[in-house]
Amino acid sequence: MKLLVGTVNGTTSVYRVDGEQALNLTEALDGVGSDLSGLIASDALCDAARKLPAGDATVPVDDITPELPVERPDKILCLGLNYIEHIKEGGYDIPDYPAMFMRTRQSVMAAGAPLVRPGCSETLDYEAELMIVIGKGGRHISEADALDHVFGYTVFNDGSVREYQRKTHQWTPGKNFDQTGAIGPYVVTPEDLPEGAKGLKIESRVGTEILQRSNTSNMIWGVAQTVAIMSEFTTLEAGDLIALGTPPGVGHAKKPDPRWLRPGEVVEIEIENIGICASPIVDEADLPAAG
Amino acid sequence: MKLLVGTVNGTTSVYRVDGEQALNLTEALDGVGSDLSGLIASDALCDAARKLPAGDATVPVDDITPELPVERPDKILCLGLNYIEHIKEGGYDIPDYPAMFMRTRQSVMAAGAPLVRPGCSETLDYEAELMIVIGKGGRHISEADALDHVFGYTVFNDGSVREYQRKTHQWTPGKNFDQTGAIGPYVVTPEDLPEGAKGLKIESRVGTEILQRSNTSNMIWGVAQTVAIMSEFTTLEAGDLIALGTPPGVGHAKKPDPRWLRPGEVVEIEIENIGICASPIVDEADLPAAG
Repeated sequence: MKLLVGTVNGTTSVYRVDGEQALNLTEALDGVGSDLSGLIASDALCDAARKLPAGDATVPVDDITPELPVERPDKILCLGLNYIEHIKEGGYDIPDYPAMFMRTRQSVMAAGAPLVRPGCSETLDYEAELMIVIGKGGRHISEADALDHVFGYTVFNDGSVREYQRKTHQWTPGKNFDQTGAIGPYVVTPEDLPEGAKGLKIESRVGTEILQRSNTSNMIWGVAQTVAIMSEFTTLEAGDLIALGTPPGVGHAKKPDPRWLRPGEVVEIEIENIGICASPIVDEADLPAAG
Repeated sequence: MKLLVGTVNGTTSVYRVDGEQALNLTEALDGVGSDLSGLIASDALCDAARKLPAGDATVPVDDITPELPVERPDKILCLGLNYIEHIKEGGYDIPDYPAMFMRTRQSVMAAGAPLVRPGCSETLDYEAELMIVIGKGGRHISEADALDHVFGYTVFNDGSVREYQRKTHQWTPGKNFDQTGAIGPYVVTPEDLPEGAKGLKIESRVGTEILQRSNTSNMIWGVAQTVAIMSEFTTLEAGDLIALGTPPGVGHAKKPDPRWLRPGEVVEIEIENIGICASPIVDEADLPAAG
């Protein structure tokens, strides 16, 4: 099942995407609500959503403005170095445990929304990533059980302001500028993808310029391992988001010059069978003033 | 004004602490609610809380079980290396920008609650820290305006599992084991402390064993600077918590052997004129089963 949280005429709903059309699950089923939390909480509701006939009450997917799949995730955990060739291009040693960091709620936004280049730095970079939406929470989840805790998979652009990421050894500031991490638009549930979302092509581009091109099978730590490793220290909650790191080809490592994102460009991240997360780059100075 | 969020007979309220007695603000004033969010949102309510006469309706402070000052903080941002002598004992270079990391909601708990040594590592360490509770949120807050955004100050024990903190260059896992960071119990509003909470003695100890002893004036980045630096990249929200780093004397740097916290001990962090944050160390295996 391919899900899309989005707004039509000012009303935010959860849609099931069937090709070019989308069925409004919020209207069709009690308890769905206006983000994925309702479906995450109830296997029965998910089953009902799967079984609904397409019927007539559909809207074109193109008429829906995407919103965050989970309106207010409890936490956003991210894996750093997870593709060998990306580790080498960044000048890091290959680790035997994943580098992890967190992102704030303010640092992420839906696919389609502006990806903001801050006024203080031009070193805005893209990172194509697979992202997990956690279903059933838990602590000390074994690798064998981990996939049972995954509600679905989405696309993430782990937008990074490199100058601030490397001001110290801790990456937090560069990974947490407001509105730099794009999520979505689609969340695909596991039955529609290979186990652990392995073997999917992953790519980032601006127009016809291919920036990253790899495959999720190249990840060092897969989905199940990552869930197990993270839940060793923290209790995962329903709706938590986990990003799985990016393949090689990021802008700061391009030769002879870094390839930063520039206002006016649209950066696209695509993962096979999940979808395309497109974000227009906007200079902070050109954002509408906060209301 | 010294505030305490805590529970008596199963009811959580906000108290104003007057010496050994505490006045129930939740009962006395509409809109206070059961954590500091109500007072943070309203200057008028804070003024009213300050002016309330002590009256008869007080309870002994010792009868109150502390709770988190903000039940569900939007985010917990932490400064790493912020005292010169602590930077040296950790083997780090003195930076010109602060190292920052984040903690999850699950990693913190109220003063008095168990501080949990995880089953996977004995390298549990204490860190005495000053913590800010953000009042008015904002982005791009100037250093000159920053203190206007501070609602109050509390005590933090930034409990760290060193083995996991240093598995990679990113500190996230070691700083985010569930129930390792103790907050509180008191939040003191700025008018009762020196500007920016400077010049306060800060200490950690187990029984009569003094582990850390310093002064908040030894911080490299003070309160106003820290708020300004963090708000350069992220929008601070009312109730956000910011930890300001720890002085020298942490357990992992003790000679000849590291001084890890052991189950059965009670670790105390004290900041002058704010209070004592005491936490019993409990082995994860000895926790009551969840549920």
